[in-house]
Amino acid sequence: MTLAPDSPEEIRARLDKVARLVAESAADAVVLTPGADLRYLTGYDAMLSERLTCLVVPASGTPMLIAPTLEKSLAAASVAAGLGVEVRGWDETDNPSDMVVDLVPRPTDRPRAIAVADRMWAQHLFGIHYAAPDAKLTSAATIMAAMRMVKSEVEVEALARAGDAIDSVHAQMGELLKVGMAERQVAHEIAAAIRASGHATVDFTIVGSGPNGASPHHEYADRVISAGDVVVVDIGGTMPDGYCSDSTRTYVVGGEPTKEVSEFYDVLQSAQEAAVQFVRPGVTAEEIDATAREIITTAGHGEHFLHRTGHGIGLEVHEHPYIVEGNDRTIEAGMAFSIEPGIYLEGRYGARIEDIVVCTDDSVRRLNNRDHALVALPG
Amino acid sequence: MTLAPDSPEEIRARLDKVARLVAESAADAVVLTPGADLRYLTGYDAMLSERLTCLVVPASGTPMLIAPTLEKSLAAASVAAGLGVEVRGWDETDNPSDMVVDLVPRPTDRPRAIAVADRMWAQHLFGIHYAAPDAKLTSAATIMAAMRMVKSEVEVEALARAGDAIDSVHAQMGELLKVGMAERQVAHEIAAAIRASGHATVDFTIVGSGPNGASPHHEYADRVISAGDVVVVDIGGTMPDGYCSDSTRTYVVGGEPTKEVSEFYDVLQSAQEAAVQFVRPGVTAEEIDATAREIITTAGHGEHFLHRTGHGIGLEVHEHPYIVEGNDRTIEAGMAFSIEPGIYLEGRYGARIEDIVVCTDDSVRRLNNRDHALVALPG
Repeated sequence: MTLAPDSPEEIRARLDKVARLVAESAADAVVLTPGADLRYLTGYDAMLSERLTCLVVPASGTPMLIAPTLEKSLAAASVAAGLGVEVRGWDETDNPSDMVVDLVPRPTDRPRAIAVADRMWAQHLFGIHYAAPDAKLTSAATIMAAMRMVKSEVEVEALARAGDAIDSVHAQMGELLKVGMAERQVAHEIAAAIRASGHATVDFTIVGSGPNGASPHHEYADRVISAGDVVVVDIGGTMPDGYCSDSTRTYVVGGEPTKEVSEFYDVLQSAQEAAVQFVRPGVTAEEIDATAREIITTAGHGEHFLHRTGHGIGLEVHEHPYIVEGNDRTIEAGMAFSIEPGIYLEGRYGARIEDIVVCTDDSVRRLNNRDHALVALPG
Repeated sequence: MTLAPDSPEEIRARLDKVARLVAESAADAVVLTPGADLRYLTGYDAMLSERLTCLVVPASGTPMLIAPTLEKSLAAASVAAGLGVEVRGWDETDNPSDMVVDLVPRPTDRPRAIAVADRMWAQHLFGIHYAAPDAKLTSAATIMAAMRMVKSEVEVEALARAGDAIDSVHAQMGELLKVGMAERQVAHEIAAAIRASGHATVDFTIVGSGPNGASPHHEYADRVISAGDVVVVDIGGTMPDGYCSDSTRTYVVGGEPTKEVSEFYDVLQSAQEAAVQFVRPGVTAEEIDATAREIITTAGHGEHFLHRTGHGIGLEVHEHPYIVEGNDRTIEAGMAFSIEPGIYLEGRYGARIEDIVVCTDDSVRRLNNRDHALVALPG
């Protein structure tokens, strides 16, 4: 039997680890608001809103979950609450920031240091600041990245299921992407297919045809697909267990690629393949980036590769580690991230190939396995 | 012809107004990250991510849009860019916080004051802090609430279209909500209907049957609807123009309500109606809350009305003004908000009625117009 990524066993191990990391850190407590950090440690997929919900992990003592009264029963149903994390509700006229600050141990020799989630809203950060004006507010990113970057076996399997689901959508592209359709219409049909594949939410449906494909984060527009168009399709969603998918393939629709496009694409495919094969424990994030970039630069397209090579993925679609120049972080077994070089010719077309990969004990495992070649669709 | 809520005329007026408000404020600049604030002022529905995108509005000089290079062409296609707001891109190895800080005027007599969006991520706030350690970081909430709370005529019409769309989903509830279905299944069918009604995204689909209805923010679970169940259905989404819907009705499925349920519901309906009718320019937010609360309290259910009476709505589903005890803000013509009292009997059932209303020059306009009675569905 496979454990769920939010099983009590997983959550217990994470709560124990974060307590240890906070105790070892310079912070007197970590405060985590709704989003991936909170879900990772509690199993609670709380609503993100102006009403403060947060997990407070003190450097000593037990963590506590703070929630608005009207959501208290939801928080109390979380895995963490089942493991003994106390849930405390606040009413509409209470100040929840005061409750948070009261839970932070007060050192005798210096002002308190409170580390907060990277995704905490400024509104809540200011709330804590007003409740404890002398406290030093810092980022909990180092602690939480150390926690979340290295995936457990059950997390890797959750990402593999997400990868299979999005692969099944790319497998239908011959039906979804046809000459004469507007990008918008293709994106809507892809969205339905993402939902039908088992994802709980559709997070993005990039359909960049012809010149639109040269803008890496172009989502979709009213441009109608013409015969022979090169089309970048970058799609992803979130599975019911919270783990994300993200995979890009580039298609030629209703015609064979020109010689120029084929040569251009071959460079990209070599770069992506080389970067994937380079992954193993001990290499650094920026070395992976350099592996892809060197091949593209040597072919004369360095200035057309506009972005980093990849990003971590898990409960968020973009998380640590970032595969980018300047990031000398060492890759470890269990780290999961995208390898997605792209080449963009402004005003003409673009191409990108993206797989999620996991670093294994001695090598690499791809979680996306559709054909990496430029796929010609009948159109 | 109706102007779109993000027409150049609307955006121009907003940019002029925010520049004036920033100049009059204590801040040297306002910095707004992706989300409603940014979309309101630029028409740009930017991707919210770890890569910083923001509008910098200095107290003197012209606003500038900062975007990652790979999204620069998207920012450059925004309404604001078309009106002359300059777009500046940053590359993956640049520090965008330095670019932001360089755009903030530097007073000679004190450290700089930078006001940031309420929804800015802590990560970006810390980025600005590290780039300008001496600067005082404050909240832009006062300025942005003053801007966004009072809706223009075209915004009210956008909210009215969203209201009509969600009303059309409630109108189908006899088909969507039946005895024998799990809440989850009902929620999925409602989600499809929300999309079909013209919404771009589904934001929430609360289906709280029987005891689950007594938890106000319960979303949905595997509980199967039984004959005679009281079911709270609170649903909403975002239209393609960015404006949100949010409406709750309570149903009895496959049976007539008991006398107890009818009496209980009558109290709620009277409270909701009285609060709606109370709305006019000059009353305060907390007086509206008190109007609903007094009727419910008098009937003996004060402790079962667990939340505020309402929240503003516009480009966000929850925004200022909040209709809550302690908020003495005066309601003005053009303010749009929910009126949604609820009564929750723990372990048994709950009920809520929610309309979006707009304060007019002398009265109130409802943007949700489905029957307010407890609707008995055949089941």
